[in-house]
Amino acid sequence: MASPVTPPRGMRDFLPADKARRERVLAIVRGVYRSHGFDEIETPVMEDADRLHAGLGGDNEKLAYAVMRRGLSADDLRTAHEPLELADLGLRFDLTVPLARFYASNRGQLPSVFRAIQVAPVWRAERPQKGRYRQFVQCDIDIIGEAGTIAEVELIEATSAALDALGIPGCSIRINDRRLLTAWLTRHGVPDSRQPAALITLDKLDKLGLDGVVSELEALGVSDARGMLDWVDLSAGVEGSWQMLADEAWEDNDAAHDLRAIRSALPDLRLQFDPLLVRGMGYYTGPIFEVAHPELGYSLGGGGRYDGMIGRFLGTEVPATGFSLGFERLIDLVELPEQDGAEDAALVYDREVAPATVVALQRALVAEGARVRIVKRPKNLRGALEQLEADGFRRFATVSPEATSDPALLDWRRLGAADSTTTEGD
Amino acid sequence: MASPVTPPRGMRDFLPADKARRERVLAIVRGVYRSHGFDEIETPVMEDADRLHAGLGGDNEKLAYAVMRRGLSADDLRTAHEPLELADLGLRFDLTVPLARFYASNRGQLPSVFRAIQVAPVWRAERPQKGRYRQFVQCDIDIIGEAGTIAEVELIEATSAALDALGIPGCSIRINDRRLLTAWLTRHGVPDSRQPAALITLDKLDKLGLDGVVSELEALGVSDARGMLDWVDLSAGVEGSWQMLADEAWEDNDAAHDLRAIRSALPDLRLQFDPLLVRGMGYYTGPIFEVAHPELGYSLGGGGRYDGMIGRFLGTEVPATGFSLGFERLIDLVELPEQDGAEDAALVYDREVAPATVVALQRALVAEGARVRIVKRPKNLRGALEQLEADGFRRFATVSPEATSDPALLDWRRLGAADSTTTEGD
Repeated sequence: MASPVTPPRGMRDFLPADKARRERVLAIVRGVYRSHGFDEIETPVMEDADRLHAGLGGDNEKLAYAVMRRGLSADDLRTAHEPLELADLGLRFDLTVPLARFYASNRGQLPSVFRAIQVAPVWRAERPQKGRYRQFVQCDIDIIGEAGTIAEVELIEATSAALDALGIPGCSIRINDRRLLTAWLTRHGVPDSRQPAALITLDKLDKLGLDGVVSELEALGVSDARGMLDWVDLSAGVEGSWQMLADEAWEDNDAAHDLRAIRSALPDLRLQFDPLLVRGMGYYTGPIFEVAHPELGYSLGGGGRYDGMIGRFLGTEVPATGFSLGFERLIDLVELPEQDGAEDAALVYDREVAPATVVALQRALVAEGARVRIVKRPKNLRGALEQLEADGFRRFATVSPEATSDPALLDWRRLGAADSTTTEGD
Repeated sequence: MASPVTPPRGMRDFLPADKARRERVLAIVRGVYRSHGFDEIETPVMEDADRLHAGLGGDNEKLAYAVMRRGLSADDLRTAHEPLELADLGLRFDLTVPLARFYASNRGQLPSVFRAIQVAPVWRAERPQKGRYRQFVQCDIDIIGEAGTIAEVELIEATSAALDALGIPGCSIRINDRRLLTAWLTRHGVPDSRQPAALITLDKLDKLGLDGVVSELEALGVSDARGMLDWVDLSAGVEGSWQMLADEAWEDNDAAHDLRAIRSALPDLRLQFDPLLVRGMGYYTGPIFEVAHPELGYSLGGGGRYDGMIGRFLGTEVPATGFSLGFERLIDLVELPEQDGAEDAALVYDREVAPATVVALQRALVAEGARVRIVKRPKNLRGALEQLEADGFRRFATVSPEATSDPALLDWRRLGAADSTTTEGD
């Protein structure tokens, strides 16, 4: 085969070192979420296409991979008007739509307030670019069945604990509320019909700057755009940001009340009120939040309340809110302590050695708790030893035809840079 | 929505208890394989369609889910002759084809003898039936780059250790060799062209019985079918089975030599020579094996040598052999010890309690290593306590408005059948 053999475009293989690192980091995240009273669930990677395309996924729906119906005839192909007619399944593009479907399917077996962990891959046919993948892992926690702000408090506390456990310090959580955004726009005369467009504009502050946002709002017909934005104090910082909500205009506003309640429940966390935080998804109905890192130009995760979504599947409204960490954005920031592989051992055997002896030695070492690799003595022993060291092994012994099945009788040597010269004459 | 909301047909949701059980069993399997010197890798769930349909997957290829190309036009649909023309990707139907592709993609970064663990889902559009799923997990180990039988010895030893660690006793490993099957058929005058059909017939012993196999072989033109099968002693048992290979006809046969070598390296395992073991996949080239359980009518796993496959992707022949455990068949056989949740605690709080207090209590308990769930005191406290117990929590405390952030000052009560009446008047 002449062409290079690669994984599909935008998708990745994980070699042993990468895979081990990813699983260690995921184990930390899972452990923290579990310690905060959440339970992990799993859904199939595919959902029925009509559920996936129920209008809940926003732009991500368009990026969903469609899975073809089985047994399509030539006639089916010829008479189809658009590709989705030929697909009955699709790969999930997030973990929220599948969770809503899961809850609707299994509600009778779940606690009245259900705290879910989902740590799993999702797929989006994004244009491949640096740091964007077509298969990537999300770490979501969601609370279903709790309408009060204690749900947001629990989510933010658990997410913050996860970031701490991963050793990613200095993060702050930006928080806002969709109801507050709506009230603010309404107060400044933006009609309901223009509000979605106005939200999209507010969301572009990073790109457009304040003046750019003002002009775009004016173009949308917001007559007092600058006056409206006067309220926003972008330099207020984490603590000072809450002064904006002390404005008497917000005194009796439910959303402002909820935001202040969330903040007062978490006095130790770096919680910043951000009146320009919008978050893209159309399904948000209440508090929304995002993890900001001082040195990164992108958020590490985010979420919010989506009280209407489960009703779409279940027919009964059930309050819900969730927080998702973007694992692929986190993983590179995590520094893991080196693992103790002191017991990990390699058995280098000569061709004349009975395999039964090597197997018996391996079995004895495994029973002692070691990780053991069997290595046929190669011509280039030094190269093999370097490979073993790179793979995390810390000692080796040569097995000769006279060896017994007792590993203690072998002549063990250390693997490692300091000792590598001593093995040369071996 | 009137119709019941379910996962896609043949696919399953896993609720917390099931998910936890599955992950615990998988952790045991991973741990054993790792201790035997194997390293876990991961590939994307999708592969390029032309690689997936390269003729290596046998019948499973036909069961692959096809993923539609992006940006198909109405013209593309109209002019397509068959569905696969519209698919550029597909979901993997096994872990072997992706591993061969992975090895071809990453060979330069892998050790010369590469021992891979893959524990991951695969997808097949099977007709749904009891115990058959369209998404299911396989646990594969493979050794790439080792032509000698030590590779088979390592695979069988590790698989056997995994079954032991899972507490599934009484399994035996049936073993045969594709080269032996070929030599046997050739010796009895079956021409090469008829051998694939003859192998399919031999594989149907369970269904057809010995007489049925004889008639089907005769129908295929095997004149001496009964004489050929006279060699086979189905009642020989684990030890006695090897007598068949002591037949002088096999004295100089490489395959017979290899099988005897594998057996003598693993004297403690229940290894049974089974001359009628065929295994379906066309790509096998040497020793093949299967896990048999005395009380089950199906195998728990199997594998074999497939020396030709990697060459299909890489252009260079590289020897390879693998052993796959069917996780969905194993999981129900495993009995796990109950987990110690003695520290797991629930904080039941009244509405008047400041959430900051509840969060501070949770934080202190988590720091002590507990798993902590926050529960707003419901009208039906008893129901909530039963749910907590079902979710594995073992103690609870009621948080009153006067509580401090010190969990030791709370009045802790046990959750559990014996104590449930004492909480009634609470």
